Amino acid sequence: MGNHCVFCKIIQKEIPSHLVFEDEKVLAFYDIHPAAPTHVLIIPKEHIETIEDIPAGDHVISLLAERAILIARQLKLREGYRLVINNGDNGGQTVYHLHLHLLGGRFMAWPPG
Amino acid sequence: MGNHCVFCKIIQKEIPSHLVFEDEKVLAFYDIHPAAPTHVLIIPKEHIETIEDIPAGDHVISLLAERAILIARQLKLREGYRLVINNGDNGGQTVYHLHLHLLGGRFMAWPPG
Repeated sequence: MGNHCVFCKIIQKEIPSHLVFEDEKVLAFYDIHPAAPTHVLIIPKEHIETIEDIPAGDHVISLLAERAILIARQLKLREGYRLVINNGDNGGQTVYHLHLHLLGGRFMAWPPG
Repeated sequence: MGNHCVFCKIIQKEIPSHLVFEDEKVLAFYDIHPAAPTHVLIIPKEHIETIEDIPAGDHVISLLAERAILIARQLKLREGYRLVINNGDNGGQTVYHLHLHLLGGRFMAWPPG
């Protein structure tokens, strides 16, 4: 756990969130600044700062994507959705705890930011 | 292989592309309509239409992400980058062969489309 990490505090329930999904390894909750009608953040419970910090052979990105697909079904995003991972400053990463954005409920335009 | 799939034809070298990376399972090439100074598409050689068609237990998304990290290093995207997967119409998916977008070389704004 990162002591000063806001996402770790959400995992620990020290900061409230609107939960969408939780299991042993993953938590998902609504983004407090939604960029689409449905905007969910899917995070590993393990504190991993960026995609580049994932240990070799760890399939956490597939795990997050699998959960995203399940959540998209639960939330009836039948017309599609966009998955986004921001890495570093140019990527627009603002919280340094790995997270996958699931965005849907409207047509997602191009370019993606 | 999808007989009418443009990405399968790129894999088969029936359609030319500006290749960035190739191994047994993955191909990466520059997007012909770049949405950022660096814009690479990373695809599995296996024809999988969408993220929802990935077989259970298959870690292809982690594989694509691992390759994206390597490519980002090769292309010196030290200031960061964004990874995007579009699923279905609302996601903006235009080619129905699974692909991961790697975008960098500029600040990627928000919302992501």
